[in-house]
Amino acid sequence: MNQTQVMVKMILDRWQSLNKEFNTALDAMSDEQLQKEIAPGKNRGIWLLGHMVVVHDDMLPILDFGDKIFPAINQAFKAADRSVAEIPSASELRENWKKISEVLDGKIATLQPEQWFEKHTTVSAEDFQKEPHRNKLNIMVTRVSHLAYHTGQFKLLK
Amino acid sequence: MNQTQVMVKMILDRWQSLNKEFNTALDAMSDEQLQKEIAPGKNRGIWLLGHMVVVHDDMLPILDFGDKIFPAINQAFKAADRSVAEIPSASELRENWKKISEVLDGKIATLQPEQWFEKHTTVSAEDFQKEPHRNKLNIMVTRVSHLAYHTGQFKLLK
Repeated sequence: MNQTQVMVKMILDRWQSLNKEFNTALDAMSDEQLQKEIAPGKNRGIWLLGHMVVVHDDMLPILDFGDKIFPAINQAFKAADRSVAEIPSASELRENWKKISEVLDGKIATLQPEQWFEKHTTVSAEDFQKEPHRNKLNIMVTRVSHLAYHTGQFKLLK
Repeated sequence: MNQTQVMVKMILDRWQSLNKEFNTALDAMSDEQLQKEIAPGKNRGIWLLGHMVVVHDDMLPILDFGDKIFPAINQAFKAADRSVAEIPSASELRENWKKISEVLDGKIATLQPEQWFEKHTTVSAEDFQKEPHRNKLNIMVTRVSHLAYHTGQFKLLK
C-alpha cells in the first residue's frame, strides 16, 4: 500500500464509519421521533435528515460525478428549519437518503487513489495551481466533519 | 507543495478550523450556561468541555509528544456525565482546555509532513507493517471527527 492509498483509505474509512453511525441512529428512530427538536428551539430531526440529503447530493456535481438527484428540495434544507412551509415527509426523506448514499458510494468506489488529488469542479484550474489542497479528497474531508457534526446532534433525539 | 504536504495541510486546516469554532462557542458561554444540558437528559456543557480536555490530553502520549498533563481528571470525563460526584469547576476546565490546546498545537507544529505517516504509540511495529494507515495523521483524522461531533452538540447550548 503506497502513501496515496493510505491517505485515501484513512478518509474513506471515516466516511463509511460515520455514515454507518448516522444510519444506525436513523433506523432506530420512528417518524414521530424525527419530528422532535434535537434540543429546545433547535432544528428538528427531519430537517437534519433533509439537510444531510441536500449536502450529500451537492457532492455529486462538486466531485464531477454528475448532476444532483434531488435539486427540488434544496431550498427547504439550506434555509433554516421552519422557514419553508412545505417539506417532504419523513418516509420520502428516508428514501432520498438511501438513494443519494447508494449513488454517491457507487461513484466514490470508482475513483483511483491518485484521482482524489485532482481538482474538484468548484475551484478554477488557476486557483488549483496555487492551492493544490482544494482537491476532491478535501471535499470528503470537509463533508466527513460536517457529517460528524450533525451525527452528534442527530443522536440526541434518541 | 508535494502530495504529503497537501494531505497534512488538509487535515491540520480542519483541526484548526474546528478548534476555532469550539473556542468561539466556549468563549461566548457563561459558566452558568456550561452547567446546562445540551438536550433534556443529555450531557451537560461542562462535562463535554472536560471530555474534550481529556481526549485531547490523551493525544500527547499517543502521538509520542510526552505524558498527559491532566491524568487526574480522566475518570470524571471518560465515565458518563453525573456518574462522578466531584468534577473540576468551569473556570478550572477552561484553563485546562487552554493549556492542552497550546501544548498540543506547539507539538503538532514541530512534526514534518513525512513524520505524520509514522506509527503512533498504541500500534505495534508488527501491526503497523500490515496496517500502515494506523499512523499519527490518522489520530488527527479521528480526533477531528470527534471534535466535530461534540462541537455540533456544544453549540446547542447557546
